[in-house]
Amino acid sequence: MKFNLSTKGFTDIINITSQVERAVEKSKAKEGICLVFVAHSTCAITTIEYEEGAIKDLKRALEIIAPMTKNYEHCKKWHDCNGYAHVRAALMKPCLAIPIEDGKLVLGQWQQLVLIDFDNRPREREIIVRVFDG
Amino acid sequence: MKFNLSTKGFTDIINITSQVERAVEKSKAKEGICLVFVAHSTCAITTIEYEEGAIKDLKRALEIIAPMTKNYEHCKKWHDCNGYAHVRAALMKPCLAIPIEDGKLVLGQWQQLVLIDFDNRPREREIIVRVFDG
Amino acid sequence: MKFNLSTKGFTDIINITSQVERAVEKSKAKEGICLVFVAHSTCAITTIEYEEGAIKDLKRALEIIAPMTKNYEHCKKWHDCNGYAHVRAALMKPCLAIPIEDGKLVLGQWQQLVLIDFDNRPREREIIVRVFDG
Repeated sequence: MKFNLSTKGFTDIINITSQVERAVEKSKAKEGICLVFVAHSTCAITTIEYEEGAIKDLKRALEIIAPMTKNYEHCKKWHDCNGYAHVRAALMKPCLAIPIEDGKLVLGQWQQLVLIDFDNRPREREIIVRVFDG
Repeated sequence: MKFNLSTKGFTDIINITSQVERAVEKSKAKEGICLVFVAHSTCAITTIEYEEGAIKDLKRALEIIAPMTKNYEHCKKWHDCNGYAHVRAALMKPCLAIPIEDGKLVLGQWQQLVLIDFDNRPREREIIVRVFDG
Repeated sequence: MKFNLSTKGFTDIINITSQVERAVEKSKAKEGICLVFVAHSTCAITTIEYEEGAIKDLKRALEIIAPMTKNYEHCKKWHDCNGYAHVRAALMKPCLAIPIEDGKLVLGQWQQLVLIDFDNRPREREIIVRVFDG
């Protein structure tokens, strides 16, 4: 299963929990696992408490590791200033696997699934959901 | 399968290799994969050489990325000072998948499975283990 | 399935996409998932645009988080100066899962699978590929 999203880029963090939950429901899987994947080199999938403060805090931490400047080798060579986006995506990775129990994703109360789009412009993204029943 | 752990919080790093190995044995899986997951937004699962020095070194690196201070947006809004914990957990993620070979987890000699509890108080945590046979 | 690689260590980032693609082809899986895993405590698996600039940029970001110095507790205790390597590997993790569609890995055009060997010397490494058909 797949679904699409419009993102604003620039480390846009988008709650995708309900879309993934719907994919799991459709699959009819009862006791399995769900793999969420994004096939783009400037995106990542993770979980976070989806709340304005925590979202800002994550962005600030990423500024320490890979600041959104143009001072990247990738930018110098390709005149494409999303070097920070490639670094952030490689560190945070494009996949996440979640158990399914009684037909539902096992997530904590304050734990939401998110797509992060690091790219330096708005993008249209495809999220892939693969479900295995146990 | 599931098991519970008491943690001390504050980036408590706990070796869970033997508990996960037991879950794999019970499953009777021979050539599969094992997903380890923690359904809490202030925890992560990873591997590390479980040795006092490396544990301290990992904690120090996390202090660079997301120091254990109260200076977080999450804290300002919610008067809940575990903002650093949410950032660390989002970066390190709540899942890890390991191959199973001849009925055993494939881990290196110096590679142990760990739960990390970043929260700012002792907690009772549940770890979920899902095994698929190939 | 498995394959071996010689690495240079010191955060050597090696494109393993074609080897993993071959393993998926051999498996004959059509709509599944592929788990890539490295059973060593100083390695990681991720995706990145495999291009000289982005590779250098990722290395620079890792220098911020865990610089390649000898100033690590792990080094003091074990007289083994790869403390930075253990920290980087624990943060980046040894596994990655990718969907399979129509018998092929689903990866973006600029998204390559890489092994990173952080250790402080050349090594011979084994990569494990596990494929599940849907």
